[in-house]
Amino acid sequence: MIIDCHGHYTTAPKGLQAFRDAQLAELKNPPATRTKGPVNITDDEIRASLEGAQLKLQRERGSDVTIFSPRASAMAHHIGDATTSLHWTEHCNDLIYRVVNLYPQNFVGVCQLPQTPGDPLANCIRELERCVNELGFIGCNLNPDPSGGYWSGPPLTDRSWYPIYEKLTELEVPAMIHVSSSCNPNFHHTGAHYINADTTAFMQLIQGNLFKDFPALKFVIPHGGGAVPFHWGRYRGLAQEMKKPLLSEHLLKNVFFDTCVYHLPGIELLARVIPIDNILFASEMLGAVKGIDPETGHHYDDTKRYIDQVKALGEDDRYKIFEGNARRVYPRLDRQLAARGRPGKRLQKEVA
Amino acid sequence: MIIDCHGHYTTAPKGLQAFRDAQLAELKNPPATRTKGPVNITDDEIRASLEGAQLKLQRERGSDVTIFSPRASAMAHHIGDATTSLHWTEHCNDLIYRVVNLYPQNFVGVCQLPQTPGDPLANCIRELERCVNELGFIGCNLNPDPSGGYWSGPPLTDRSWYPIYEKLTELEVPAMIHVSSSCNPNFHHTGAHYINADTTAFMQLIQGNLFKDFPALKFVIPHGGGAVPFHWGRYRGLAQEMKKPLLSEHLLKNVFFDTCVYHLPGIELLARVIPIDNILFASEMLGAVKGIDPETGHHYDDTKRYIDQVKALGEDDRYKIFEGNARRVYPRLDRQLAARGRPGKRLQKEVA
Repeated sequence: MIIDCHGHYTTAPKGLQAFRDAQLAELKNPPATRTKGPVNITDDEIRASLEGAQLKLQRERGSDVTIFSPRASAMAHHIGDATTSLHWTEHCNDLIYRVVNLYPQNFVGVCQLPQTPGDPLANCIRELERCVNELGFIGCNLNPDPSGGYWSGPPLTDRSWYPIYEKLTELEVPAMIHVSSSCNPNFHHTGAHYINADTTAFMQLIQGNLFKDFPALKFVIPHGGGAVPFHWGRYRGLAQEMKKPLLSEHLLKNVFFDTCVYHLPGIELLARVIPIDNILFASEMLGAVKGIDPETGHHYDDTKRYIDQVKALGEDDRYKIFEGNARRVYPRLDRQLAARGRPGKRLQKEVA
Repeated sequence: MIIDCHGHYTTAPKGLQAFRDAQLAELKNPPATRTKGPVNITDDEIRASLEGAQLKLQRERGSDVTIFSPRASAMAHHIGDATTSLHWTEHCNDLIYRVVNLYPQNFVGVCQLPQTPGDPLANCIRELERCVNELGFIGCNLNPDPSGGYWSGPPLTDRSWYPIYEKLTELEVPAMIHVSSSCNPNFHHTGAHYINADTTAFMQLIQGNLFKDFPALKFVIPHGGGAVPFHWGRYRGLAQEMKKPLLSEHLLKNVFFDTCVYHLPGIELLARVIPIDNILFASEMLGAVKGIDPETGHHYDDTKRYIDQVKALGEDDRYKIFEGNARRVYPRLDRQLAARGRPGKRLQKEVA
């Protein structure tokens, strides 16, 4: 079984954007009473948005289940105020819920959070509870920079984030650390802001001692961990200079990397320097990088092909990357799958 | 011959910091007339600051010449105003000049620039001219984020940068794209801000068409290019989506990467995905990452050891990385070395 831990609903029917457009229009001339307003999308529209896209690619590329969340670049927590963010987030998450209900074999839900720069996390906690307890979601995306590229808030190790970490551990759900669009013209969103945020988050975690306070908290750092595996020596060396424990002890019980790295040499490096137990298969489909690589003749984001080519990986390694690690990091996913008669496997090592 | 293209005077005698402290103290209570004030450092102090540090490591690790610039984290262009930045920069550059005069076999000078957020580049152009024409420097460090981690200025492709690019090409000197310290608590300077800036700059260059306007302009992106080689597929794919030419055409005649990547797998990736003609040997010594790697028993920043271990590199490749590419990217260095009886070699390929 192959679990893709990082997919976004980038193909949502146009009714979602119509809602957003109306919401943004209202911001220019806010009414006395803020109403949420409806999103008008039919089930058929949802089916049509997925059948020729994510579902087609799952079949073609051979993945089974995608951990699916709203389009990351559209979270845009910097737009409007807390009410804007809450209404938008609820709709985006509800739409993911509908996707999962229509295709329960293919998708499991991960929510965005109604973050707002400078705002406390009460709304986020309520929405996380709703999504996990009422909608059956198994994780969330946490934006380390809700300012959208100006990084005006505190680092992830700041105590102001602790309420959401308490809720995450209580609910047994991990957070993927994922920024949204950049309104800073210096940062292209998928080419700089995303990758920088991954690198930045990891370094913040090196500097702090967050997992002493939250030993059960789990973070997935997407896009292969940004620059981290390429500079693994730098990070090991900086932690050492700061008198931190070895990274295996300091972070790697809690921090995981996905495989959204779009060429074979990058995936080979990832699998070589990051412990296999910390790597989760993902493709980021659909849409971060859309084209076909002229050097291979295949889509850049067909990441399974790269992993299949890494000769150094044994059978247990592949099971962990494609399935086992995701079941461990997302325990609610494991339980959902088991309840549907799809339990995890024992490793070859354990069988022998 | 081995040229290290990226070294900073991190061990400058304490007289430099004493000047800076006085300058910063003045900022709190500025006098009617701003005077530059002296830096009191003797030649013996300079010798002592280098003999047990950079010079010792050159001997031990087998490099010959270091392209040497003021301490990057201390440039701090966000502090004070244009006068602050100018006085500080002139002193820092003058000190590099004294180092080069004391050890002309071991060091060549690269200057910092008196950038100030929001300020036009006239001071920078004057200082660049002074350093190149009067002090014999061969390049400069250009800070793509003089705000110090808030990225409040325009991208490198913005026309406001063009005057410095005109001067760089006129003088035939490259710029290393190098940020300074971060005053944003989100970004550790060597662990996040430096690496993010490298990634950001490269992505800005993909988005723009800067080298159409400046075909002779050359940039060195340090720290192995940040996240770029690890995500080479992503960058090739994004350029393709943007209908840009292949990166070999779009950027790689103008953009070069150094080898400040502190572990063998990272260097192997670099040498595998980035054309050899675009890789310049560097160690960033002294001090970005100071320790000894327990996995190898050697210093993290002893980057020559990693390159020596990359089996795929032929003799010409090694010559290019260690010497030939630096001579090409820094033509004034090549001429200085040739004038001292140390011309470049012909490649084996050319001899044969």
